[in-house]
Amino acid sequence: MRDLSGLVTDIDGDLLADASALARVREAAQTPDVLPPIDAEGLRIGPPVARIGKIVCIGLNYHDHAAETGAAIPEEPILFFKAPDTVVGPEDTVLVPRGSRKTDWEVELAVVIGRTARYLDSAEEALGHVAGYATAHDVSEREFQLERGGTWDKGKNCETFNPLGPWLVTADEVPDPQALPLRLWVNGELKQDGTTADQIFPVGEVVRYLSRFMTLYPGDVINTGTPAGVAMGRPEPKPYLRAGDVVELEVGGLGRQRQELKDA
Amino acid sequence: MRDLSGLVTDIDGDLLADASALARVREAAQTPDVLPPIDAEGLRIGPPVARIGKIVCIGLNYHDHAAETGAAIPEEPILFFKAPDTVVGPEDTVLVPRGSRKTDWEVELAVVIGRTARYLDSAEEALGHVAGYATAHDVSEREFQLERGGTWDKGKNCETFNPLGPWLVTADEVPDPQALPLRLWVNGELKQDGTTADQIFPVGEVVRYLSRFMTLYPGDVINTGTPAGVAMGRPEPKPYLRAGDVVELEVGGLGRQRQELKDA
Repeated sequence: MRDLSGLVTDIDGDLLADASALARVREAAQTPDVLPPIDAEGLRIGPPVARIGKIVCIGLNYHDHAAETGAAIPEEPILFFKAPDTVVGPEDTVLVPRGSRKTDWEVELAVVIGRTARYLDSAEEALGHVAGYATAHDVSEREFQLERGGTWDKGKNCETFNPLGPWLVTADEVPDPQALPLRLWVNGELKQDGTTADQIFPVGEVVRYLSRFMTLYPGDVINTGTPAGVAMGRPEPKPYLRAGDVVELEVGGLGRQRQELKDA
Repeated sequence: MRDLSGLVTDIDGDLLADASALARVREAAQTPDVLPPIDAEGLRIGPPVARIGKIVCIGLNYHDHAAETGAAIPEEPILFFKAPDTVVGPEDTVLVPRGSRKTDWEVELAVVIGRTARYLDSAEEALGHVAGYATAHDVSEREFQLERGGTWDKGKNCETFNPLGPWLVTADEVPDPQALPLRLWVNGELKQDGTTADQIFPVGEVVRYLSRFMTLYPGDVINTGTPAGVAMGRPEPKPYLRAGDVVELEVGGLGRQRQELKDA
């Protein structure tokens, strides 16, 4: 753990788009004389990216999750949005919305954009626009999402519904984003145990596809979907989250989250 | 037209949430000795709100528009999102996306939030959280929105798809947001001629409803839906927008927009 506050105002899209500034930060952080390790004990861990412009989410992007929900395999990526104000740190409290009966979990691989992506032609080119990766929790209220009319956005934007982090792992340290294990536990019991190898649309294809419908800017985040094992996919009575539950989740190499649920 | 740059860094959520700062700006702007009028000739007009956190849009919120699209009257507000990066000024160019065949127009009343709105109980209370109103153009690509799988967001987030302004008219100057005429012309021909009196869910109810599913923050924007008269609601061949078309639109008392369409 290093204190970067003397080097950068924050880690945001402006920094991620500036390769030389990023290199300076990386070099300083690896030079103990310049930036000695600090004691993180007792500090809150915030999200690893500031001033996120938008969060685009991909729905039904794992074969096993599509199967458990009884949905057909999408022919094109399904997208929805989470507002950046839903983002909290990886150990912050998650609030069960008032009136919620179906608050559900979803461990996801988050992609952070580092270069403006607009009308890209290939998945390979698209991967060159990724700054890095993070663990994300796409908390979802299924009744709001599916039974209250309209689009999925209604169940995806309650406050605290997007824990992100702890780390932003730069793309050079993730040799294959399609070989990452994802796991999630509720009260210590393993609920999701998947791999990004099961993604219907892999990261490069998702970025390429999205860039045809919108412009992606440095600091934008893409939640790339969740594997099987959510509460919605289980037999009745489905084990939706309640105040007092503890959710832990991790994506291989990207770090672990732990949230306690409380009532809003 | 006044130059406020000596008084405020920008007009954003922080300013809108600060009643005393807002009062100082208003007083200075009305005192010619302090802030003399400036000549706006040749200046670009940007959007009237900076650092928008999120844009929540209400779909099918006019009786006449629901009828023209053959949709049932929604039992609850239908919501979708536009990313803040789609916002441009009221006279900026609007880009027809590559591959688009169904770029459509929608004149809307935009609501700008001034106080954090969370689990509000009444429409009356909700109106007290509105900082002001603006003219908005919710440009929409119907094939992307409706025929490419998933939610409406896919056809609502192309770059330049949310001209906003010219003005933010503060709520105290809009005695009844449900009595505003909305009009839109394409190449000089009147296409939409509606009134917010026809809204299925009026402004206060929209803000109250949304506050149960998400927290609204100062500087957030709500596009409250469009009246009848869009290209999608017309007989074949539907007159979708093309490069070279000129769209003009206004909401009564909130100012007029004019955009020329170009290819992306």
